[in-house]
Amino acid sequence: MLVNGIHYESIEYISENDRGYIRILDQRKLPFEVEFLVLDSMSEVNVAIKDMAVRGAPLIGLVAAYGLLFSLRECTESGYKDELKEYAAEIISQRPTAVNAAYCVNKTLERMLSSTRFEDLWEQALLEIKELTTAELMISQKIGAYGLEILKELSAKKQRKLNILTHCNAGWLACVDLGTALAPIYLAKEAGIDIHVWVDETRPRNQGARLTAWELSENNIPNTVITDNAGGYLMQQGLVDVVIVGCDRAAINGDAANKIGTYLKALAAYDNQIPFYVALPSTTIDWNLSEGVKSIEIETRDVSEVKYIEGWENGQIKKVLLTPEASEAYNPGFDVTPAKYITGLITERGVCEANEEGIKSLFLERFEEE
Amino acid sequence: MLVNGIHYESIEYISENDRGYIRILDQRKLPFEVEFLVLDSMSEVNVAIKDMAVRGAPLIGLVAAYGLLFSLRECTESGYKDELKEYAAEIISQRPTAVNAAYCVNKTLERMLSSTRFEDLWEQALLEIKELTTAELMISQKIGAYGLEILKELSAKKQRKLNILTHCNAGWLACVDLGTALAPIYLAKEAGIDIHVWVDETRPRNQGARLTAWELSENNIPNTVITDNAGGYLMQQGLVDVVIVGCDRAAINGDAANKIGTYLKALAAYDNQIPFYVALPSTTIDWNLSEGVKSIEIETRDVSEVKYIEGWENGQIKKVLLTPEASEAYNPGFDVTPAKYITGLITERGVCEANEEGIKSLFLERFEEE
Repeated sequence: MLVNGIHYESIEYISENDRGYIRILDQRKLPFEVEFLVLDSMSEVNVAIKDMAVRGAPLIGLVAAYGLLFSLRECTESGYKDELKEYAAEIISQRPTAVNAAYCVNKTLERMLSSTRFEDLWEQALLEIKELTTAELMISQKIGAYGLEILKELSAKKQRKLNILTHCNAGWLACVDLGTALAPIYLAKEAGIDIHVWVDETRPRNQGARLTAWELSENNIPNTVITDNAGGYLMQQGLVDVVIVGCDRAAINGDAANKIGTYLKALAAYDNQIPFYVALPSTTIDWNLSEGVKSIEIETRDVSEVKYIEGWENGQIKKVLLTPEASEAYNPGFDVTPAKYITGLITERGVCEANEEGIKSLFLERFEEE
Repeated sequence: MLVNGIHYESIEYISENDRGYIRILDQRKLPFEVEFLVLDSMSEVNVAIKDMAVRGAPLIGLVAAYGLLFSLRECTESGYKDELKEYAAEIISQRPTAVNAAYCVNKTLERMLSSTRFEDLWEQALLEIKELTTAELMISQKIGAYGLEILKELSAKKQRKLNILTHCNAGWLACVDLGTALAPIYLAKEAGIDIHVWVDETRPRNQGARLTAWELSENNIPNTVITDNAGGYLMQQGLVDVVIVGCDRAAINGDAANKIGTYLKALAAYDNQIPFYVALPSTTIDWNLSEGVKSIEIETRDVSEVKYIEGWENGQIKKVLLTPEASEAYNPGFDVTPAKYITGLITERGVCEANEEGIKSLFLERFEEE
């Protein structure tokens, strides 16, 4: 995707002087500063994930896998099997809600453990990560293509500019390219559909105002930032034609966990008969989870994210206090949208209803495995 | 109410050396600095209203009436009737949507014009304002008392700490004392009910995080600031027992306009079978409005409120940019909650259902007048 008119991927592996590292955009500084981070150790990867220098389930997954690759640098030839398992668990624990981290790390771990020679581990891990990256790219493209069909149909029906609302950031910054929720939007733009995106600012960390608004604007997609409070009013006024959001974890009944506040937008969309889609790679579906609202564990994050906010003043990123100094605060990171409020799931295999039957129609093999 | 343990009213009239003035809390600086403003001229009052040093419909009304009182200082004995009318219009124009300003200023003007001697005008105006203030206080106390009954009943049923969620600020800072939505909460505290308040931060101006959290804490009411996104999740988790919000304008079918985002909380409360109450003085009901969702005109405010936020850093109030510099933004100030999502209206005459029949049961004379 474009940054200042130049093509970038949100994660790049570079091998220089025989020491591999990854380069990522430091998402903590966007949109105020465009800075890249270089990571070449597991501890750096862990910090980058925990501090949300990288974020977005698919991107976290790949960066986490690189973390396992880099952990090899701490392993001993005699004990690497146990050591890798321990490191894998440590990396996965950084963001417990993100199911992709576990998936990518475990796939990479499996590949490494299936290797018979210690010297081959690095290359095997790297091969696995490349496969995961390619799969991730394919998934974004397919989700984009299936989502595009929905937007095309709506656009043909409306015969005017299509207003899409999104929450948080499920764009290319969260993935390798295109994104999940934003993938259909990028492809719609390419297809010449007249679109406009309402961007929820997405407190507390403002991924909408900071990341989604930025990446859409960099790629010339008309967008307008709104407070998280405004979406319901816009829907009442007929100013939203469709909602598309990403997903952090879904249950096989179609319940979908996503950034805190998503559920409120789903309720408002439902109340105003506006289609509400969740775009997700199937890796986000937790095949062991029969329902989500009660079962998906929600990460509680630091209260400082609520009490303080970062913004730009006088050429610097500043953190300012928003509440009385001694205020109590509470900061759940996600909520779960019940399947009944979801019009459809946009997956890499097509669009399905948000229920077990729908998911089964696309991923039958997952249900037969049991 | 208490500020640093000392009793204050949000507006106080003081007569010193034969020159009367009012003292108000400067709400632009709360909670970071507790500063009082002294106003003794119409122009100072106009600036305080325009700049939102005072806010909240009831408080604006009274401060505006004092503005008319002070304008007498510019009047001539020969021309005061026309001069006062002109000044009244000027004061009312500062915040055109606040119905109370027009009401209080016009009542005061009427009283002044009904006086036959120029020397009596000051005293007559002051008497009128005292009556308006007393009426305002009575309303808060009655809303508080009726709301308290609801909280008592819920508390008896739950047999544990009662969790109340509120949006924006409808507390004593918006009124003279107690408030509207917060009045039952203050009285519940006095009645020894174990309560805790979830405070929506209420973007874009953060009246929840800045004002509600502050006034509750100053009065020793346990409260926790949350993002506007979090309420739905808390309700899903059973962490909210009742929602109470204020109101800016209501229709006679029970539809209620309040700070943007209120509608989303009403939807979530409804989805989770949690009672959702709107506390409002009957002056807020627009008796000419048969429904609200389509008819209540919503004020669009400056986009800088979305793009920037004020906070405290290094002993100063700072304004920081939250979005890409060139971002488009949109800033509707209110939304309308459809009556069907409102469990009841808490008025100074009692609690009623949010529909015409309910409102009629308390304010029959309003319907007979037609």
